[in-house]
Amino acid sequence: MVLVETSHPGNLGAVARAMKVMGLRDLVLVNPKCAIDPEARARASGAVDVLDAARHCASLDEAIADTVLSAACTSRRRDLPHPAFTPRQAAPDLLATAGHGPVALVFGSVTFGLSNEHLMKCRWLLNIPTNPEYASLNLGAAVQVLAYELRCVVEDRTLALPDFEPAETMAVERLFEDMERTLADIGFLDPAHPKRLMPRLRRFFAKAGLEKEELAIWRGIFAAARRPRS
Amino acid sequence: MVLVETSHPGNLGAVARAMKVMGLRDLVLVNPKCAIDPEARARASGAVDVLDAARHCASLDEAIADTVLSAACTSRRRDLPHPAFTPRQAAPDLLATAGHGPVALVFGSVTFGLSNEHLMKCRWLLNIPTNPEYASLNLGAAVQVLAYELRCVVEDRTLALPDFEPAETMAVERLFEDMERTLADIGFLDPAHPKRLMPRLRRFFAKAGLEKEELAIWRGIFAAARRPRS
Repeated sequence: MVLVETSHPGNLGAVARAMKVMGLRDLVLVNPKCAIDPEARARASGAVDVLDAARHCASLDEAIADTVLSAACTSRRRDLPHPAFTPRQAAPDLLATAGHGPVALVFGSVTFGLSNEHLMKCRWLLNIPTNPEYASLNLGAAVQVLAYELRCVVEDRTLALPDFEPAETMAVERLFEDMERTLADIGFLDPAHPKRLMPRLRRFFAKAGLEKEELAIWRGIFAAARRPRS
Repeated sequence: MVLVETSHPGNLGAVARAMKVMGLRDLVLVNPKCAIDPEARARASGAVDVLDAARHCASLDEAIADTVLSAACTSRRRDLPHPAFTPRQAAPDLLATAGHGPVALVFGSVTFGLSNEHLMKCRWLLNIPTNPEYASLNLGAAVQVLAYELRCVVEDRTLALPDFEPAETMAVERLFEDMERTLADIGFLDPAHPKRLMPRLRRFFAKAGLEKEELAIWRGIFAAARRPRS
């Protein structure tokens, strides 16, 4: 992440934290207009190491000299636009290219504060989708969105429910028989006019996806409901 | 966006800005541990209006009472997890459901600070992918990521409303009260030793996603089960 002429120390800290939390480390400060002060450290929280390891450069040219790809984050439309992508469109290629050498994401002093001269040095433009009526994305927030998109590519994981044991179909069928008998016993289901009750309950249970232990619980509940009480 | 027991005013401002920049407005503060002070206003920047319009609630129950879906942002793994998704997986459904009524995204005091009790009240869990070695996502950054994902869906314009009406959270809570009372009445639940029964059933219902008509059916079933029989 390359920050050009950052003016607010709090943003330096926020950027460091946003990076580390998504697994990024290499921070470059181009001609910063503020110091890494206590506010920056406080906002960095557990990512002070990223802040302390930041490389300082006198110019954007120097910062991106050894990169194989540089992309500037901006919201402005240009007369002669470079290739422009959303972070989501660009993330897979940014990461794939990083296999060949350093890739720089470049941010202005306030998010949209890169000069035309700076933008021209970068190969791609990145536009983060925002509310057209209030597009003032904070620098730390912009870095967070980009870092998050890169993380998503790294993980590309699907968070499914953990491996609980699903109930067996035959056992579930027996539960439905149990259920139907119980609902008749307690007077909720009229066997002569069952209407659509059981199909509806089947759909409800299908949505939930019954696990073995849950099956046991429901069998217990229906047994207890059937038992005569005083 | 529902913030539970937020302790840092700067985060309040950052959240307001993160929301507005992605086109979101409705902020709810549950039992905040700090005031909307000058630091909060400074960090909100042009989104002070979102901050000033924030609704204050004494409890999470109150905050999500009129919602049709609530999702808690957390990083912790649970023994009995509710359905868990990444923001990317959940965003289209969150937005589609918002066509039926308010949808709440719930955040703890520090991002990972929601109690189990709070988490159980929410139907879904949302896990933002992070660096496993440093997962300390800032509150404002977490809200930014979620708001960004929702924005991406808005811009995609692939909104299809589901064709069923989700039950309101408050009504679902009343159903759980009903259920607990009924299970005690029929002798399945020992109020002195409830163990993990209600959390398990809450999870089961969370997986299914209760619809309005289904809610009515279950209320009827529990009422019938409670009724004394000969």
